[in-house]
Amino acid sequence: MKSDLDRLMKEHDIDVLLVNGPAQHNPAMVYITGGGHITNADVIKKRGQGAVLFHGPMERDEAVKTGLKTISYSKYPIQQLFKETHNNHVDAIALRYQKMFTDLGISSGRVAIYGNNEIGAMYSVFTRLQQRMPGLQFQGFIQDEILLTAMMTKDADEIEHIRQMGKVTVSVVARTADYLTGFKAEKETLVHPDGSPLTIGEVKNKINLWLAEAGVENPEGTIFAIGSDAGVPHSTGTASDPMRLGQTIVYDIFPCEAQGGYFYDFTRTWCLGYAPDAELRLYEQVKSVYDAIASELKVNAPFGQYQTRTCELFEAQGHPTLLHTPTTEVGYVHSIGHGVGLNIHEKPWASAANVSSSDILAPGAVFTLEPGLYYPDKGMGVRIEDTWQVTPDGKFEMLADYPKDLILPVKSK
Amino acid sequence: MKSDLDRLMKEHDIDVLLVNGPAQHNPAMVYITGGGHITNADVIKKRGQGAVLFHGPMERDEAVKTGLKTISYSKYPIQQLFKETHNNHVDAIALRYQKMFTDLGISSGRVAIYGNNEIGAMYSVFTRLQQRMPGLQFQGFIQDEILLTAMMTKDADEIEHIRQMGKVTVSVVARTADYLTGFKAEKETLVHPDGSPLTIGEVKNKINLWLAEAGVENPEGTIFAIGSDAGVPHSTGTASDPMRLGQTIVYDIFPCEAQGGYFYDFTRTWCLGYAPDAELRLYEQVKSVYDAIASELKVNAPFGQYQTRTCELFEAQGHPTLLHTPTTEVGYVHSIGHGVGLNIHEKPWASAANVSSSDILAPGAVFTLEPGLYYPDKGMGVRIEDTWQVTPDGKFEMLADYPKDLILPVKSK
Repeated sequence: MKSDLDRLMKEHDIDVLLVNGPAQHNPAMVYITGGGHITNADVIKKRGQGAVLFHGPMERDEAVKTGLKTISYSKYPIQQLFKETHNNHVDAIALRYQKMFTDLGISSGRVAIYGNNEIGAMYSVFTRLQQRMPGLQFQGFIQDEILLTAMMTKDADEIEHIRQMGKVTVSVVARTADYLTGFKAEKETLVHPDGSPLTIGEVKNKINLWLAEAGVENPEGTIFAIGSDAGVPHSTGTASDPMRLGQTIVYDIFPCEAQGGYFYDFTRTWCLGYAPDAELRLYEQVKSVYDAIASELKVNAPFGQYQTRTCELFEAQGHPTLLHTPTTEVGYVHSIGHGVGLNIHEKPWASAANVSSSDILAPGAVFTLEPGLYYPDKGMGVRIEDTWQVTPDGKFEMLADYPKDLILPVKSK
Repeated sequence: MKSDLDRLMKEHDIDVLLVNGPAQHNPAMVYITGGGHITNADVIKKRGQGAVLFHGPMERDEAVKTGLKTISYSKYPIQQLFKETHNNHVDAIALRYQKMFTDLGISSGRVAIYGNNEIGAMYSVFTRLQQRMPGLQFQGFIQDEILLTAMMTKDADEIEHIRQMGKVTVSVVARTADYLTGFKAEKETLVHPDGSPLTIGEVKNKINLWLAEAGVENPEGTIFAIGSDAGVPHSTGTASDPMRLGQTIVYDIFPCEAQGGYFYDFTRTWCLGYAPDAELRLYEQVKSVYDAIASELKVNAPFGQYQTRTCELFEAQGHPTLLHTPTTEVGYVHSIGHGVGLNIHEKPWASAANVSSSDILAPGAVFTLEPGLYYPDKGMGVRIEDTWQVTPDGKFEMLADYPKDLILPVKSK
């Protein structure tokens, strides 16, 4: 939680946090500021002290709404910066940072850099700033153990945001199911009254509309993929594909609050009308692994142990997995889950490539369980996913309930 | 245009472009790949050669859709990278880049870095990669003269994307006007049939819904601000504010194509029912400057000259501007416009802080004209904005037409 930040900074020998970028769709900045219509800003936080928000003069009202101490960039007139740097844009911004740090009394120590922005520009700015301020050591993390570890455990208010997104998500999934079951089938395909096939693209347009009606955003799109597309975990589906009966549909939906707030992550696999034996068996195998893992969850357990366990269970069913076939592209090819918050993917991590000792199912953790099996050459794939929380008293709770039926009935064939 | 890239790379002594990040809501990557559901990737393009897309193994189908040559990251197994770098995550990614560059036969020259991603992580990765590959020089730009200059001039297909977004935008603005004029007024405020006031928040929810119905996104939100909020250029408005008569409403709407494509940028200022003298005069002053600037546009002219000209015109009306009052927060406080494309703000630039010799109104340029005057203490602000193109034969065309009436009639008072 946010109250862990100073402790985590100390544990990892970090003296200052610097967060850069807009206050929307930028998880680190949203976490620190609470969001708002701020197109570009910097937050500097010394360990043990409050954060200071540097903002553009035109965005002063939005900046004040954050409740942080604010300083306008107009304190550092850009023409003066250009003059001092002989019109070198990169150096002018580096000089502004130097003045900002100096004004906050920061001249030595380790500075951790966060935020989403243009990586090239900021690489050159920080390289120049490092030369200007040799007493500071700037660094960032691929595997962040400070901000992402604080963000990993949510407080009650954050949980409510995510729970609310869960309600919205399953309500849209329910509308999708109702919509599909309202169509008639002809020649193994859902059709409009005029006989033209219903397509993936039309369904996705409806999903986007229902999400917008609920006032949420869908910045990364929705996966709604049928048949062989369903067999490729991150294929989003082909818009022109008709909605055929008896093929697996992987429906993975992960909207967030407007302007880049908390996400929810949810997947169901459906077959329209009926499921052939192979599809049904694949589904039951994934479902049995989902249920096994969900029943084995223990508070404060390393999340990664469930990835190993999932691989073992799938291998016992005869499927290749990343455990013993690291480069496999069929069978079980991803992670059992990930944390969910202001990032769609965040700590705790379960995959071997990311996992560290801090990736545990601690009270306050919000994470997905999402076992899946993929056989694109056989034209099928299955994934089942819910978002769970570890409650303050160490129980496990699914944040939004929704039936796990494979078959969606259709009116007639 | 994209066909200018090799020439621009040569002019600026750049041997290699590196673009990193997702293929959605990441303009540089969308420009090179055409977009798609790719969560993280790298594009490396040597001068005079085609671009190569490095992608995650789970996203191979989406990668192939780009039409670029593709290489999966699975060619560089992560466990092997960790082994070679003693489990240092930053160095492991730097090593992967080293292997990728080496596989493409790149060991010397200047590499320009592009893309939106986590700036801290990438700062550390490129700092390490620079140590690993001293023959390469990595750099980014605050003032980019290569990719953004190529992107500045649009081809016919890009213009059509933007024109289509213009159609969507003005259709939503028209629905907003119809919606507002459908309400009755009581005590100087629009009210629901039950007498409760219509609020800014309700109007914004409708705007978002209409945008979603049109299948577009609104990643940065909409400015719909009344009274003193309208007097602060980037205030987005206060959701609980009632829709009062006789106050300026600044309505600035800038949606983009789904998953982060081309933007449109558009502003109208309205007064409900009537306009008091002061508001009317302010509006007429902005409108006269808009008309003057629009009539003076010349192909290949530096965009910045129109910023100076706008300041002169507003100062002749008695308003402070950035020209002679650089820190003013009232009067004319921003730029006459900016380029519009995959970025809501891009080249050509008009503001003194950004402008370079390449910021000209060249054929293919798409840009806004948006003069405005702001007096928050007097409870008012005015801005008028349209998006224009320079046609291939050097004419100026507004991309979506919409009336510029200040007053929106209301049913009764």
